[in-house]
Order: sequence, then structure tokens, then C-alpha cells
Amino acid sequence: MNIAAMTHIPDSRYCFPISKNELVIRFRIAKEDSDIKVKLVHGPKYGFQQFQEYTDMEIRYTDNLYSYFEHKLVLNDVRLAYIFQITENDQIYYFSEDGLSSTYNFDNSFYNCFQMPYINDADILPLIPWTKDAVFYQIFVDRFNRGDMEKDDSYIDMDWSDIPTPKSFAGGDIEGIRKKISYLKDLGINVIYLTPIFQSISNHKYDIDDYYTVDPQFGDKLQLKKFIEEAHENGIRVILDAVFNHVSSSSVEFQDVLAYGSKSKFFNWFMTHDDAPSMELNNYEMFAGCNYMPKWNTSNTDVQNHLIEIGKYWIREFDIDGWRLDVSDEVSHVFWRKFREAVKNEKSDAILIGENWHDAYPYLMGDQYDSIMNYAFTKACLDYFAFDELDSKGMSERLSNILMRNSWQVNRMNLNLLDSHDTHRFYTQVGKSENKLLAGLALLFTFIGIPCIYYGTEIAMEGGYDPDSRRGFDWDESKWNNEVFDKVKELITIHSDEIIKEGEINIDYNEDLLLIKRTFNGDTIELVINNGDEVKEISIDNILSSNEFDNNNLKPQGYVISRH
Amino acid sequence: MNIAAMTHIPDSRYCFPISKNELVIRFRIAKEDSDIKVKLVHGPKYGFQQFQEYTDMEIRYTDNLYSYFEHKLVLNDVRLAYIFQITENDQIYYFSEDGLSSTYNFDNSFYNCFQMPYINDADILPLIPWTKDAVFYQIFVDRFNRGDMEKDDSYIDMDWSDIPTPKSFAGGDIEGIRKKISYLKDLGINVIYLTPIFQSISNHKYDIDDYYTVDPQFGDKLQLKKFIEEAHENGIRVILDAVFNHVSSSSVEFQDVLAYGSKSKFFNWFMTHDDAPSMELNNYEMFAGCNYMPKWNTSNTDVQNHLIEIGKYWIREFDIDGWRLDVSDEVSHVFWRKFREAVKNEKSDAILIGENWHDAYPYLMGDQYDSIMNYAFTKACLDYFAFDELDSKGMSERLSNILMRNSWQVNRMNLNLLDSHDTHRFYTQVGKSENKLLAGLALLFTFIGIPCIYYGTEIAMEGGYDPDSRRGFDWDESKWNNEVFDKVKELITIHSDEIIKEGEINIDYNEDLLLIKRTFNGDTIELVINNGDEVKEISIDNILSSNEFDNNNLKPQGYVISRH
Repeated sequence: MNIAAMTHIPDSRYCFPISKNELVIRFRIAKEDSDIKVKLVHGPKYGFQQFQEYTDMEIRYTDNLYSYFEHKLVLNDVRLAYIFQITENDQIYYFSEDGLSSTYNFDNSFYNCFQMPYINDADILPLIPWTKDAVFYQIFVDRFNRGDMEKDDSYIDMDWSDIPTPKSFAGGDIEGIRKKISYLKDLGINVIYLTPIFQSISNHKYDIDDYYTVDPQFGDKLQLKKFIEEAHENGIRVILDAVFNHVSSSSVEFQDVLAYGSKSKFFNWFMTHDDAPSMELNNYEMFAGCNYMPKWNTSNTDVQNHLIEIGKYWIREFDIDGWRLDVSDEVSHVFWRKFREAVKNEKSDAILIGENWHDAYPYLMGDQYDSIMNYAFTKACLDYFAFDELDSKGMSERLSNILMRNSWQVNRMNLNLLDSHDTHRFYTQVGKSENKLLAGLALLFTFIGIPCIYYGTEIAMEGGYDPDSRRGFDWDESKWNNEVFDKVKELITIHSDEIIKEGEINIDYNEDLLLIKRTFNGDTIELVINNGDEVKEISIDNILSSNEFDNNNLKPQGYVISRH
Repeated sequence: MNIAAMTHIPDSRYCFPISKNELVIRFRIAKEDSDIKVKLVHGPKYGFQQFQEYTDMEIRYTDNLYSYFEHKLVLNDVRLAYIFQITENDQIYYFSEDGLSSTYNFDNSFYNCFQMPYINDADILPLIPWTKDAVFYQIFVDRFNRGDMEKDDSYIDMDWSDIPTPKSFAGGDIEGIRKKISYLKDLGINVIYLTPIFQSISNHKYDIDDYYTVDPQFGDKLQLKKFIEEAHENGIRVILDAVFNHVSSSSVEFQDVLAYGSKSKFFNWFMTHDDAPSMELNNYEMFAGCNYMPKWNTSNTDVQNHLIEIGKYWIREFDIDGWRLDVSDEVSHVFWRKFREAVKNEKSDAILIGENWHDAYPYLMGDQYDSIMNYAFTKACLDYFAFDELDSKGMSERLSNILMRNSWQVNRMNLNLLDSHDTHRFYTQVGKSENKLLAGLALLFTFIGIPCIYYGTEIAMEGGYDPDSRRGFDWDESKWNNEVFDKVKELITIHSDEIIKEGEINIDYNEDLLLIKRTFNGDTIELVINNGDEVKEISIDNILSSNEFDNNNLKPQGYVISRH
């Protein structure tokens, strides 16, 4: 056995409550040891010396190095003591906080057993009910649709169909989105996530001057209110973009510090290395080396309160349904904890989605965000569909690895995406292969978590890295890719099936085939993707959606989703 | 190489800031791979594609399975991207968030490098300055000394020198401790930690009726104030015991719920399974199955505020220096976060020490406690000195393992103890071997962290498990073990050396010898313990303290501490 590969960590992604009396316990071993048997030996924390129950565990996920046993324990006493009993070739071992041993002394177990000391309600990350069949649609506001023809449009400096430059303005606005609500409803999405809409000089508006004003290019508060109300009436939620890592240098606060230095009441709102900030010396903390985006000092309680008020204001006054948190990994944990509490008090089912590109477990323990933009999923899809860095086995392992990074609540609320305003468009990354795009979308909509479509994906919009991925949506339907459009609608419908909403996920492969199974109450929805070069014969009934699948033959890059 | 043993986790005990621009990075490998070379490949988060620096890492600690590379990085830009470069037999590998690979594409590193996105001040756990040479002395109040001869002592039902029963009262009080301040000052300790002193019917007072009243058996507020002031004047801090997991069933709050059930305004302060709690049905959450100790619902904000006010009150009004947190692992994380913020606002250098008997990393990330009662250290000492379960190699590995569970700030603030009111006395556990007791104490006072003496250890008091470990302190000096007493004083003096206060720790072994080295600015204090059966010759100068050491001969169970 590879003892050094064995891992269990209490009160972590290896042991987390999903409700007051349900605890998920994971135990990791080296993949080559998958023939060992593991039992969970558990009992009440006060009484483990006398009473132990033995429960078989099963391997549920396997990545490139490890197999993960997982068991959901339903508890009477929510104070749990436990260890693992391991059997290899009739030889028995025990795995406790002190590691592997061939015997275990239960009399001294209070020193070195694992434990879940108590499940406190306040520490459980709740699954937000509406996320179960949520489908996000991300809109880069300047490029989706122009609706207000009356506004001062002198700022517009590109034709709608031009390839944008980093600084060009196309004229999209909130009124334009409102006018497309019926389009979006027909497509089937039920959450719109807007990139920032507050006053800012840029087209992307990630450098905000005033968090309490809708940028006039995009509309005003009345138009926003009307849009959100109409979206809600149509069963569509609205998420805004919270840029709380940094602010524009032309904000009132930073201008005050520029003018008055350490005498400004806002001096400690920023992190200036000298007595006063200087945009020549760049002697202050800023975002990504951009001196026009000074970094908020989110360790400062005044800044914390200022940003929390903003977070609450747009929920209270405009009834938005959550926040996507920009550059959230550079903001203090302390701030996010306070922000979460304030937001959830304002609207208990508002969602908080961090922009963390990496393993974000320290933010996802229940006290900070609900989930993240799942760029690890994006990277897996690129490696599998675009870069040929993963075969189906590798993809199965990578996806399993991603799931084992977090609790099931987080996995179910993670925002899975193929692309965004910060990446190349997926369709371009896969060399404009319609089949690969559709296979990627099929995975997106059957995987566990919330799928997010970047605007225009449904008509196979193309585009390289920023600004190319931010082109104007082409509303000339004659130019749309209708096959992609229809498939996206079909996949969205499948996504609302109870099996997808509630079901567990199983990930496997068979040579070049990737197999994703969702199961609930004995029913299964199964996705098969052929990532090889040869046609594969698959006998399958009750097909919900497919591409390049005919007469039980799944062609290369094809997919088929069935229900049984 | 054992790839499955390789571990690094960002923003964790494997990567933590110790100041705004200092980051400690650990990388774990299988012990048998200790000949591989590891370099930290690091660069600015925005620019890692173009710029990487390579820094050699060294193995600093080794336990029974793993070796831990560790490096302290001093940063200019506190936004860090990094991976590890591994060389084995001239073959180069890279270890990133996606695991081990033979090549690494820095162009796509933003997807799968490790990162420390930003070091926010608010997220750094500060080292409390006074803990650097703190020596705790734990007093079980009923059994240390009686000072108030005027009080109503009708409750006293045992002679001071009797072996106590679970419910007997001996008469110790705060006035008695105050009168022994000069004794304690002479001994050299500088922090007194008292078991609970608030109104309660028991001798241990862990079932509190009223958190705002000093129990009359122990004294009153005036006596407490006088004691704390006099302690402070003598350079001794005072820590009280915060029992916030549960309360007495005779408390006002629980009595109200017993009387009025769900109509009581305190109903949600407890966790009752029906409409009303019943001490016959035991239908409510309680501590350790004891129905006279109902569990506070620390998920409830009213309870949180109630307990936080208590925590602040005794700091504000009596200037106590911190809290030991009883059964802290069963209390919600959410509560401890709020409690920490409130306490630190009241007194920024007040210490919070949790009673977690197990790996407590989820509580020690900077947002909850400062440290814990280090019962893992206790267990290691028992396994080594008392149970013969560890030889010197095993002890070296176990102690290393314990250190790698936490950040250095936590390691430096952890309360190391050989025993407490909740264990057998260590002296009894080692079969009343004075040599083993002294060797254990030598380790306690040279190890990294805060040593805690349980009252009477300095005179070699004996006692089995509760209540035997809670005997009355024998003030008849003629019965004291003066050799132990003098050695404890000597060891306390050594503990205040700058090398121990500031120094790093190195743990090693040589056959039966355990070697603990503390180093600072090129100077070293070294402890050698002989845990074998044979005399070992050790050439050593500048001896600070020793036992069973003569003419460079270290006898079995002996120790020697030197400075060089």
C-alpha cells in the first residue's frame, strides 16, 4: 500500500456536513491501491471507547493519482468520532489522526481519533434552492444590444459589427437587454449575469467611479429597475458584478487622497507607501499594475462598511439576486465574511460567486462565497476538446479531481463555463468545430453545477482573447448558426430535468468515450462523448439529444444524451 | 518518486503569510524521496508568464512518512504566482495545481499555477508579543490555596489533604491565589490560567449559572480585581476559562425555557427537539450527555451577542489578558469569528486558546483562536516517556508532524502541556519517575510554543485521572520535591533566553537520543534527552541545565541543555 498517499482531513473537503445530521466523509488512497477495502469505524464522540459501528465505504471518484472513498453518514448524535479500518489481503490496519497502524487502542481514542465535534447550523453551507436548475447567461453589456435610441450616443466610436478594440464603445445598454428578455426566455436561460454597469469611463466598467450610479451609457436606475422587474416577471434572475478589489483613480475617494495625502479622511482606504499617492511614482497598491485602478484596503473597516453598504443597496433597492465578485481572490477573507453575512441578511437566497481561477477552498468553507466561476472546468474542457492534452481517461480523472476539491454544495453551485469575457471564445479555441462546441455544451449542461453561457455562444459567435471575445451580438438571424441554437435550447431543457437538478454524478470513460452519468431515485441521464477518431457503436434508447449520432453509431466529436 | 505523496495546498498550512511581505511555503514529499532537489519557481502574479525566479528549497522537517521542504519568501509584490521544480537523477519535473508534469507551459500558467493572490493585513494571524516568553501556570481554583478565612465555608466537605471525590469541595479561592503571587513570581511563571470562577454549584464550575458573578466560594469581584491588579504589578498575566459551549440547567435562561417552553424568549437559545425541554426526556442538546449542562445554540445571534458581551465585560472591567475556550471545538466557527473580533477590539493582545484535542487547523487560520491547548504534544510525550510507544526517532517524527499542522505563529502560541485537570498527572503516568518528569519538563521548556505547568508539577504532585489529578496543593514545604522544584525554576529561566523567544526549531535524533535545537542569530540552545537503556557519552560545554549527566555521560532518562 502507498501509505503516504492516504489522506483524510477532518472539518474540510474530506469531511463536511450537508445538513444538520448528514455528514459526507471522504478518504483518499493511491489509485493503484484500489483493491483495498475500507470501513468507516464511527461512534458517538462521548462513548467511542465503548461503541463503534463499522460501515463499508466505496470508491466513488478516481483521478490520475488517487481514488476517493466517499460515504454520506446520517447521524443521530451530531458529535462524531471516527477512524478508518483498512483491509489489504486479509491484513487489517487502522488509519487515525496519527496515521496508519496495525492495531488501534480505542481507550486512548480521544487523543487521536478523527472527529466532527458538533454540527452547528451556522457552519453549514446551504444549497440555494433556485440554483438547482439555474442556467446563467453572461452579458458584456456594451456588446449585447442597444435598446435606448434616445440617449446621448456621442461616445459610440465603432460600428456594431466591427471587431472591437480595447477601448471602443459599441452602444449596448440595459434597455437593449430588457428588449431581449423574450429572446432569452425563449432560449431557456433563467439568470442573467451582467458585467459591471456602474459609472466608469471604460467600456468594460471594471474601473468604477461611482458605485451608486448606473453608467449613463448603459441607462439609469429607472431603466435598470424596469429591466429587473420584467426579468423577474419572466422567471429570470439578475446578478451584477461587484468590483470591490479596486476602484477608479477618478473616484471621489482616490481624488481626495491625491489632493490631500495623509490628511485625507480616505487616506487609509488605500495602501499608499508614502505620505501621499502619486500617479507618476505609482507608490500605492493597484490592480494588475494599472495605476488608474488603485486597490481598496479591504482590511480597513471603513472600506469594508462602504463596500458592504453598496452590496446591500442594490439588493434592497433593485432586488438583484446576487453578486459575481471580481478579482475576489485578492480581497481579504475578513471582508468576504462580513460581506456574506450582510448580503444574506438582506436576501437569504442571493448568490455570491467569486472570480477565483484556482482551487478556492479557503473561500468556500461556508463563510465566504457560495461558489466560484469554475475556470478549472474551463481549462479541463480546453485540454480535452481544444488542446488534445487530455484523452477521455484523462478528462474523466481531471473532472473527478475538480469535484474532490470542494463540498457537494459548492460543486452544485459552481458556475461552470466554457468561456467568458476574460478568455478566448470556446468556439474559436476548438478551431470553429461545431461538433466540438456542441460536445462541450453537452458536457456543460449535464455536469454537476450551474452552466453559464457567454452571450452569443448559442449562435456560435467567434472571437479570440480580449477584446476579440467581446464582439457585438449579431441580431441578423439569417447569419445565426441555427443548429447550435436549437441544440442549446434542447440542452437547456434537459438541464431542468429532476435527475440533473437533484442527481448524483458519476464520471467514467471507455477507451475514447467519456461517460457522465447523473442518477436520481434509480433514474439516469447519461452523456456519452466520442473524443476519438473512430466511429463507436453504442446501443442506446430514449435519446434526449445527440450530435453526429446515427443508427447507434457515435461519430468522432459526437455526443449522445439518453435517459434510462 | 512517490508522486501521490507530493502535496502543496495554497492559502493553508502549506502557504501562509507571517507578515505583510513574508510568506512561508511548504512542499511535502515522501520521506524515501528525500534525495530529490526542489526549487520554488516564483514570480509576480501578473507577469509570471514572462518572469520566473528559481529559489532552492531545503528539507526542514521529517515525520514518519514525509519530508517537508520549507522556505520563507520575502516579497516585493505581495501577489505571488509559483510552482515547484523537481529534479530527480537529472530528470526535471514541475509540480503545479494540476500535479506533476515533465514540462510546464508558463503561457497558460494563470490557469494552473499556485498563487498567493494578495497578502491582506486583515488575514495575517499576528504573533502576540508577550507570548514569546510566556510561561503558563494552570490552577484548579478549589485545590490550590485557601486565602479567605472569613467566608462561609460550610460548603467545604473534605480535608485539604484528602484524595478528592468528583463532587468534593476543598476551599481554595482567589484570595488564596493572590497570597501566593510572590511564590509564583519566584517560581518564574508569568501567566496564571484559572479554571472557571463564575457562579456554579460544582467544584470545577464548568456548569455556570451566572457568568457575571464570581462564585462566592472563590471570592467576589473586589477580590478578583485585587488579585488581577497585584498579579499585573508582579508581571503576571491572568487568563480565565470561557465556558461558552454549554451552561448550567439552573441558569436563568434555561429555567425560563423549562418553565415556558417555546413561549420563552430564550427558547431558541437552546436546541430543543420538541416544544419544550424536559430533564426527564432529555430532549435537548446537551454537553457530553449531561442533562444539567444544556448546550448553547451558538448559531443564534442573540446567544452570540450574549456570550460576546461576557467575553468583553471581564476584559474591560477586570483587565484579564485572554480566555481559554472550553469545549471550543463544539462551538460554531461563526461564533468564534465574531468573538475574536470583539475581544481583539477590546484588548488587541488578549490571547484566545481553544480546547481542541485534535488537529485544529480550521480554527487556527487567523480568524478564530490564536492557538490551542496542545494535547497532541501531551500525547507525544506520553507515548515517548510513559507508554514506550515511541523511540527517539519516532518522537522526533511525531513532534515534526505536529509542527507541520500549523503556521509558525500558531506553533509559537500553542499551549504545550504535559498534563491538565482533564488528564492523569504526567508524573503519575511516568510511574513517578523523577528523571522522566524532568526530561519531559526539559522538552516542554525548550520546545517551540508556550509551556504550561499544571499546579503542583513543580513539587512533583501525583494523581490519576479526574478527580485524582485535582488534589489539594501541599503547602508543607518539607514534603516538596526540591530537586524538581529547582529544576523547574532553572528551566523557566532558560525559557526566557532570546534564543528560545525568537529562535527557530530543529528536531532530530541519534539512536536513543532526542535532539532539540533552537537557533537564533547563529546561537543555539540544544536539548539532548537519552531515552535508551545505556549511558551515552556526549562532549558538550556551556551547560545550562541537566539531570543524570556527569562527566560527559548522559545516563538513561537524563537530559542536558547547553548553549553554543
